[in-house]
Amino acid sequence: MTIPAYRVGVRTIDWVNDAVEIIDQTALPDELRTLRLSTVEEMVDAIRRLAVRGAPALGVAGALGVALAARQHPDDPEQRARAVAAVETARPTAVNLARGARRAARRLPEGPDAVLAEALLVRDEEIASSEAQGRLGADLVASMCDGPVRVLTHCNTGALAAVVGGTGLSVVAELHRRGSLREVIASETRPLLQGARLTAWELGRLGIPFRVAVDGAGAFLMSRGEVDAVIVGADRICANGDVVNKVGTFAHALGARRAGIPFLVVAPESTVDPDTPDGGAVEIEDRGADEVLAFRGARTAPAGAAAVNPAFDVTPADLVTAIVTDQRVITPPVVG
Amino acid sequence: MTIPAYRVGVRTIDWVNDAVEIIDQTALPDELRTLRLSTVEEMVDAIRRLAVRGAPALGVAGALGVALAARQHPDDPEQRARAVAAVETARPTAVNLARGARRAARRLPEGPDAVLAEALLVRDEEIASSEAQGRLGADLVASMCDGPVRVLTHCNTGALAAVVGGTGLSVVAELHRRGSLREVIASETRPLLQGARLTAWELGRLGIPFRVAVDGAGAFLMSRGEVDAVIVGADRICANGDVVNKVGTFAHALGARRAGIPFLVVAPESTVDPDTPDGGAVEIEDRGADEVLAFRGARTAPAGAAAVNPAFDVTPADLVTAIVTDQRVITPPVVG
Repeated sequence: MTIPAYRVGVRTIDWVNDAVEIIDQTALPDELRTLRLSTVEEMVDAIRRLAVRGAPALGVAGALGVALAARQHPDDPEQRARAVAAVETARPTAVNLARGARRAARRLPEGPDAVLAEALLVRDEEIASSEAQGRLGADLVASMCDGPVRVLTHCNTGALAAVVGGTGLSVVAELHRRGSLREVIASETRPLLQGARLTAWELGRLGIPFRVAVDGAGAFLMSRGEVDAVIVGADRICANGDVVNKVGTFAHALGARRAGIPFLVVAPESTVDPDTPDGGAVEIEDRGADEVLAFRGARTAPAGAAAVNPAFDVTPADLVTAIVTDQRVITPPVVG
Repeated sequence: MTIPAYRVGVRTIDWVNDAVEIIDQTALPDELRTLRLSTVEEMVDAIRRLAVRGAPALGVAGALGVALAARQHPDDPEQRARAVAAVETARPTAVNLARGARRAARRLPEGPDAVLAEALLVRDEEIASSEAQGRLGADLVASMCDGPVRVLTHCNTGALAAVVGGTGLSVVAELHRRGSLREVIASETRPLLQGARLTAWELGRLGIPFRVAVDGAGAFLMSRGEVDAVIVGADRICANGDVVNKVGTFAHALGARRAGIPFLVVAPESTVDPDTPDGGAVEIEDRGADEVLAFRGARTAPAGAAAVNPAFDVTPADLVTAIVTDQRVITPPVVG
């Protein structure tokens, strides 16, 4: 088994020669482009426009963003605090971003090098976490499904969402390595097409057979018997087991329940948030009309049309078969 | 209340000066373009590439297509039969197309004028049917929901799907006329965006407040309490009450059930097919990968990606609160 070049050579996010380097996820699949981020402002912008995205990657971005703040404002605590807050709140829904930022920020009194060391620790932990999720998740799927499985996944939960490997897609890749995977259906994930653009790109690189489907076809493909398990990631896992993830996840969970197939959530422990009681307590980012009303530059609706664009949804705990982290397999509630 | 110009001046499909005229639905919302179809070949092509679409409009297209065949091959019964068959089978899922074609074809022995007269009768019946659906549907919604309602709809069920008025959207328009409508959420309907392109265009013309949403957001918006009722059309209604409609409908029905709101199907009697026992007996058209993998020239996925593209799905009868036709309100089963 050869490891694809992009897994060896390129991390989704890393610290290289005194700056953060990320793969620009807005340019894929057309172009594999690396961006260097040297300031907090550049980092916040990259997070906001989803050049870096995915809960684990955002955790690393948060920590590295604070490392940038520490270097940028070594002698101005007020400016530094404002910069840290900007990183922490660049996007509201994924708990990892704020958590990564806060963790690095606790080392601020020790100086920039200590902050950077903590951020690199966050990075290394996410790398190790991804491998553990893959192993635990593949074991779980093998225990639930007979023979090579057909998996439906939503959004992007691969290396691009983490540093390497990924969350849900690390399970898929591990199943593939074990010869236990038949096919992936990649739900395209409107409006920004992370499934069609990013997951399809990663699956192609990994040599995994896949087909792209529109989001609205997911539940039907399950009911028609074309899917054995749904595997998704998470942006926040609440104490009661409610799962906040990319919009469209909830409808797939309803489809899985109706079809009687497992609905599995794969995420690092850093995504589990015992301080959030349930999905109702999570701020769901609305990313505005433009993302919905345009499709890769072309307008989809008449001029003057309005849109509602919740970037995430809440899958209630009772629809979740199991949550796989790097440390455990949980059946909701998570805390209780 | 002024009637919008396009309802007065332009029918979606009609017979004008010895040819069929249709609004080219592939050009909307950018351009309101009329196409003249003078041959069976042009009609079949228009049906296949969805220049004319929507179950009731397809019924009229089927009948008028046979009228074209009768005029095109007055002295060659074999060629004529082949042309009729081409119209009847241009698309497989909506029952109206084959039914309209067969109905007109029964008059073939009487000559081209009789066939045309029958086709125009199909057209006039669909016009009358649309109005009756609007009235019956609005009465039903008023009996189920308090106050001005917020409706989620999928695909396009308006005048563009019929001749004038529409099916689901005729109910929406009637609610609006009665002052009983608060807002419509138009599910964009990937891959061909009939919701964003066509429904949004019609709602704008009717002065009805609306927002477009990606298909994956539908169930979540319902669970968040932003929708009072889901109203969709149908391409075929089976004897047991299973509803075959644009892909994505089933996921919305699951969302409606979970949210405890009515899921209503509005269609002419001509869409009810007692000869189809259930959804499993319906051929679901797969329209190929290109519609999913590209939009207006822009690629959505990496080169070489595959896709699965069922154009319709099956909503099982138990998820359907009621079916409204021009003649009755049915709770499944339809026959039995």
